[in-house]
Amino acid sequence: MAKEITSRKENYSQWYNDIVIKAGLADHSAVRGCMVIKPYGYAIWEKIQAQLDKMFKETGHQNAYFPLFIPKSFFSKEASHVEGFAKECAIVTHYRLKNDPNGKGVIVDEDAKLEEELIVRPTSETIIWNTYRSWIQSYRDLPILINQWANVVRWEMRTRLFLRTAEFLWQEGHTAHATRGEALAETMKMINVYSTFVQEWLSIPVIIGTKSETERFAGAVDTYCIEALMQDGKALQAGTSHFLGQNFAKAFDVKFSSKEGVLDYVWATSWGVSTRLMGALVMAHSDDNGLVLPPKLAPTQVVFVPIYKTEEELARVSEKVLQIKKLIEAKGITTLYDDRDNLKPGFKFAEYELKGFPVRIAIGPKDLEKGTVEIARRDTLEKQYVAQDNVPEFVEKLLTDIQENLFNKAAIFRTENTTKVDSYAEFKKVLDEKGGFILAHWDGTPETEALIKEETKATIRCIPLDAIKEDGKCMVTGKPSGQRVIFARAY
Amino acid sequence: MAKEITSRKENYSQWYNDIVIKAGLADHSAVRGCMVIKPYGYAIWEKIQAQLDKMFKETGHQNAYFPLFIPKSFFSKEASHVEGFAKECAIVTHYRLKNDPNGKGVIVDEDAKLEEELIVRPTSETIIWNTYRSWIQSYRDLPILINQWANVVRWEMRTRLFLRTAEFLWQEGHTAHATRGEALAETMKMINVYSTFVQEWLSIPVIIGTKSETERFAGAVDTYCIEALMQDGKALQAGTSHFLGQNFAKAFDVKFSSKEGVLDYVWATSWGVSTRLMGALVMAHSDDNGLVLPPKLAPTQVVFVPIYKTEEELARVSEKVLQIKKLIEAKGITTLYDDRDNLKPGFKFAEYELKGFPVRIAIGPKDLEKGTVEIARRDTLEKQYVAQDNVPEFVEKLLTDIQENLFNKAAIFRTENTTKVDSYAEFKKVLDEKGGFILAHWDGTPETEALIKEETKATIRCIPLDAIKEDGKCMVTGKPSGQRVIFARAY
Repeated sequence: MAKEITSRKENYSQWYNDIVIKAGLADHSAVRGCMVIKPYGYAIWEKIQAQLDKMFKETGHQNAYFPLFIPKSFFSKEASHVEGFAKECAIVTHYRLKNDPNGKGVIVDEDAKLEEELIVRPTSETIIWNTYRSWIQSYRDLPILINQWANVVRWEMRTRLFLRTAEFLWQEGHTAHATRGEALAETMKMINVYSTFVQEWLSIPVIIGTKSETERFAGAVDTYCIEALMQDGKALQAGTSHFLGQNFAKAFDVKFSSKEGVLDYVWATSWGVSTRLMGALVMAHSDDNGLVLPPKLAPTQVVFVPIYKTEEELARVSEKVLQIKKLIEAKGITTLYDDRDNLKPGFKFAEYELKGFPVRIAIGPKDLEKGTVEIARRDTLEKQYVAQDNVPEFVEKLLTDIQENLFNKAAIFRTENTTKVDSYAEFKKVLDEKGGFILAHWDGTPETEALIKEETKATIRCIPLDAIKEDGKCMVTGKPSGQRVIFARAY
Repeated sequence: MAKEITSRKENYSQWYNDIVIKAGLADHSAVRGCMVIKPYGYAIWEKIQAQLDKMFKETGHQNAYFPLFIPKSFFSKEASHVEGFAKECAIVTHYRLKNDPNGKGVIVDEDAKLEEELIVRPTSETIIWNTYRSWIQSYRDLPILINQWANVVRWEMRTRLFLRTAEFLWQEGHTAHATRGEALAETMKMINVYSTFVQEWLSIPVIIGTKSETERFAGAVDTYCIEALMQDGKALQAGTSHFLGQNFAKAFDVKFSSKEGVLDYVWATSWGVSTRLMGALVMAHSDDNGLVLPPKLAPTQVVFVPIYKTEEELARVSEKVLQIKKLIEAKGITTLYDDRDNLKPGFKFAEYELKGFPVRIAIGPKDLEKGTVEIARRDTLEKQYVAQDNVPEFVEKLLTDIQENLFNKAAIFRTENTTKVDSYAEFKKVLDEKGGFILAHWDGTPETEALIKEETKATIRCIPLDAIKEDGKCMVTGKPSGQRVIFARAY
């Protein structure tokens, strides 16, 4: 095959980049840190969007759209928010260019300086809560359950396609509630929506937990997250849902009068996932032959490749392919018939492996004689002959099997790469030699957390919600701890 | 009704604003010239997006995503493009804020100045053609048929919700072809897609034509447009499709080798519609009671309002409503049952008229006795009693009728407000007293066009494609002209 992929063993990071670029998912752009999402990558993102959007609407949310720009002063209104967000960002200072009087090209027109600089949104809590102030007067105006699909910008110095880019696409939910309890329930509801989606659609097992104070979203009272484990033993945060308490309502003076006529600040949540999920998808399942896609997110689920020498053979093969293709499509399965005549079957096989088409069906003259087809599954690369009459049912079941197999494989990998440790020495050893999730006792202080991070580059990924309460001692300070938390090096 | 709307007669501009705001479509934001698209408005935009996206895919296009930012120097590469676009735009000059050493808040960190300023895209030809350079080598890589759904920013000094905002949402198609003929065919194909969509979905008749040189897209060889007429007699450009020739390929050095091995520049098109269509939708059909929506774009097509005095009556009415509702929904029609008990039916009626729900069904105890319901259609405000058994079929047909009636009404209005004139004096008189589309002879020169614009504020909306060839004399200069063109004052 022409497009060689670096193996995971040789260089995991290069392997990832090779797949993203060579499978046609995304490309670097002329703008530092910004990517181009190519049609094949965008088609997967559209499937992610469609399913999430459906799940958001089923849970009562509506979409809306808020401005790209946020006045600089808004960031200072919520004290911890500005610390976490307003620093590395794209700042609009002028609104006009003019012809360069000294030659070719255009220059910034200094007469067109904005009175107040505008920030390209890194997240929209501030502009949205400033808007909610005029939307909310009474308890009758609550809850507000809004989601936004948008682009956001965070000026990252070190970027990687999908995983960390200056601009990325995401959705951000921003809800307003009359009570703390309702807002908390919403926060939990949405982290569960994310968990269901990532497990059932991306086939990636996740752990639901809360962030430590240090890792919490800037402005949140509590951050819930889902954490996934990648093949190189590093963790990836796949989604977050924040309970914001009354912080933003207080910062933007958003009050409502209750049924009893009492004025109170509104309770808030926000939650989001981004094109980062595309990075998780690549890193969780792919292999040294290329991308591996869960069938539910594959833009095309089944590809047919004809095997033939003569035009006459092609005609006969095509007739059979089109027959079977129709029956498969009737089951709601997406297909492609690749009858390009300037490429050899072997080249096509490699191309569809690279692009992660879940199922490949090859048919040649011998198959016509025997009444069979050759079916290859991308996840295990296994091939088998199947009687032509059985193909639609076989493929339907196979797609479900692949979806489940990918999940199971990832779950087994995670189990094998989750280690309980009881001493800091052991912690460092496991981290360096094996990686993965490490379950350890921690004394609950930011100081200890910071020390561990500084010495090992590992962070607390989350305090898992379903952890068993277990008395122990912090592996660093020996102070008491009531449950283990999950450490890992992370993307 | 609480939310009064200014009448069209009294103040058309205020009427428009009232509807947009009071029907809950959009709102002004804290950022100058940027709007908030509210859930009800966004739901209509989602319907527009879904249908257009379907039509784009049916015509072979794929979606992708390119960076929000464009390096300043890119704009200078296509000479006429920079004149038309790069002037009034949002310019990112810095990438970091820091705490203000003199007190509260944050200030721009002057150490974080970009080497080259970035422009927030006003349109993406430059960044996309810069990218296509690395995607295209041979005729085998062509055509590229890509669309992007995105936000864009043009720094407008005078803004109006949906019609002209600094930031707006749109789609932009950018295609690359091996031949001039193919690119021209694509340009035409897409203006026809727009025409079909606006006529069949927005129920607005449009005229397809080409722009004069003056009104052409900056960088285009030819611009095709669809022009619609609003109720105040002003024109609105509803969509454009540009034949870009080899201009951008030359500016960004995008060449391909043909089947015969000859190197040539690639041919290009671009085409777009925006949230401006929302403004057209409001202005084409709405009345002094509020929004009027074509059923195909209404987020909810049918609303049920119960009429009752006692709880027992409500229970009986509700039972019947839910029966009928289910049958209507089985036809793929969207419905809402508004059984809020703190609001009177009259208030609800006014609210759904304001929001433009196409069909309203009221049921009370008398209807239960008589086996009828009262059905009101939003477009004509007519009401009639219909036997309960016939409601699903009746409503289905009624929605089609409304969709067609809106189109026909707008078509009649346009016919009545299209005037042929043969002298400049008559032109000015019609323009001031009647408005609308004016068909007149023009000598084809930018100078005459500029004079007319300066003296009357009317512009050439388009040179209609289906115009009858007719020898005449320019109404201003008396020079010969081969066909009439369409003039109007425009949004």
